[in-house]
Amino acid sequence: MVKVTQRRRVTRLTAGGEVRERADVLAGEEPLEVRVNARSLSVTMRTPGDDFDLAVGFLHGEGMLAGWEEVAQIDYRSGIGADGQRDYNVVDVTLAEGVAPPDPSLERHVYTSSSCGVCGTSSIEAVRRVGRHDLAADVAAHPLAELLALPDRLREGQAVFERTGGVHAAGLFLPGAGGLELACLREDVGRHNAVDKVVGWALREHVLPLPGAVLQVSGRASFELVQKAAMAGIPTLSAVSAPSSLAAELAEESGLTLVGFNRGSSLNVYTGRQRVR
Amino acid sequence: MVKVTQRRRVTRLTAGGEVRERADVLAGEEPLEVRVNARSLSVTMRTPGDDFDLAVGFLHGEGMLAGWEEVAQIDYRSGIGADGQRDYNVVDVTLAEGVAPPDPSLERHVYTSSSCGVCGTSSIEAVRRVGRHDLAADVAAHPLAELLALPDRLREGQAVFERTGGVHAAGLFLPGAGGLELACLREDVGRHNAVDKVVGWALREHVLPLPGAVLQVSGRASFELVQKAAMAGIPTLSAVSAPSSLAAELAEESGLTLVGFNRGSSLNVYTGRQRVR
Repeated sequence: MVKVTQRRRVTRLTAGGEVRERADVLAGEEPLEVRVNARSLSVTMRTPGDDFDLAVGFLHGEGMLAGWEEVAQIDYRSGIGADGQRDYNVVDVTLAEGVAPPDPSLERHVYTSSSCGVCGTSSIEAVRRVGRHDLAADVAAHPLAELLALPDRLREGQAVFERTGGVHAAGLFLPGAGGLELACLREDVGRHNAVDKVVGWALREHVLPLPGAVLQVSGRASFELVQKAAMAGIPTLSAVSAPSSLAAELAEESGLTLVGFNRGSSLNVYTGRQRVR
Repeated sequence: MVKVTQRRRVTRLTAGGEVRERADVLAGEEPLEVRVNARSLSVTMRTPGDDFDLAVGFLHGEGMLAGWEEVAQIDYRSGIGADGQRDYNVVDVTLAEGVAPPDPSLERHVYTSSSCGVCGTSSIEAVRRVGRHDLAADVAAHPLAELLALPDRLREGQAVFERTGGVHAAGLFLPGAGGLELACLREDVGRHNAVDKVVGWALREHVLPLPGAVLQVSGRASFELVQKAAMAGIPTLSAVSAPSSLAAELAEESGLTLVGFNRGSSLNVYTGRQRVR
């Protein structure tokens, strides 16, 4: 249990008739329950690792946690498996005194098949209301060539993908003297988790918001990823694949630059064209 | 609102210096709330379309609905937008008399970032308990060449992907006189939704369980997809990309054949090797 990868016997068959037994490495996937002040708030399937960052990054994206100083304690204390052993699939977050716990009305929806967040159009209003950062005021701009290089730089850092071919990645690039520098890269079977882990890292490192930053993700740009970037004060989100309609809408409303189909030699700018030089 | 695709202006930039404004087609993404007997059960971000199938397929996968005869009524009646107009983002399912509504304890977890289901290891037990089908007893087997052809056959049917490049797909192939025949193909921004829509279709068509069937999916094989296939009595799941560790574990426990990295010329069999000839 609680492994980033797992080995497994697999049979590889080819059209040419080759049959080969071999060991394959699979990306780990296990449920993580997040409890806030001893109350269960969410369960997500994730690749084990950086669980505390995942928990606080998720809470930040949902507007439930402004900064690391609002966390009094974070640990695995309440997870005990059926065998009496510590279960590393439950993270307990205890908020600092005076910090309001999440609104219980948020617990109305249990099951969320693919992804949720505050959800949809009402969520656009929620992000607008809860969002603490004025992205439109961020004057950062990046040379096109530098943005085009990000997917390759992300892939180079993907240790788990290299072995399993089965995980998403999110990389946070911050402006430095020589251009964009990779500050944090996380991999996970869930694209949202990879972003939560990166944002959680930034929160714990006290570097939020992130003026001039670019978040590069390996897959599509969903509504939720734009929401998480906007909440973290990241002005540019670049995805290897397509954005959804709602992702583009929220990006526009938030003043965020949304890049899609970033394939190394070309990219599409959906919103915030001024940040691409 | 409630569109399968949306047009949007986009700027395409290439490394060679080309800059072109053009209209791009984006995959629709909107929240769908599912209510059972007037009680809110889940919210998922989905591509609009086949919403009733999505709702009943989801409920079936969670063990909350055995068949179409358990549904008394399904409609959009309670969704009214802020402007007083019908809101097609809320589906109301009314269960037939005598059918037990979902356990309220299932509503404990609200937020589910990437994907949930009954969740993790305890979920393996739940699937074993709730699962109605003995997949291990399904003696179907398919020629390797036929399985290798499925990703191409899936892609050929993907109308939305063709235009947006931004959606997942699930295709249900049933055994026919001339081999596997495509019975139902659905596309969605969420991989789980595409599978729910396919299963919901099968439930509504009274063809569940699905002996000898193969479910081909465009992305990775997550734990949840194996869960949904097992619950629907589908003995073989084939994915273009990698399975996760928990997906392989559940497939093994369920007697399901799990194929990964199906790339047309080769594939990996993780479990249930006897169904590949």
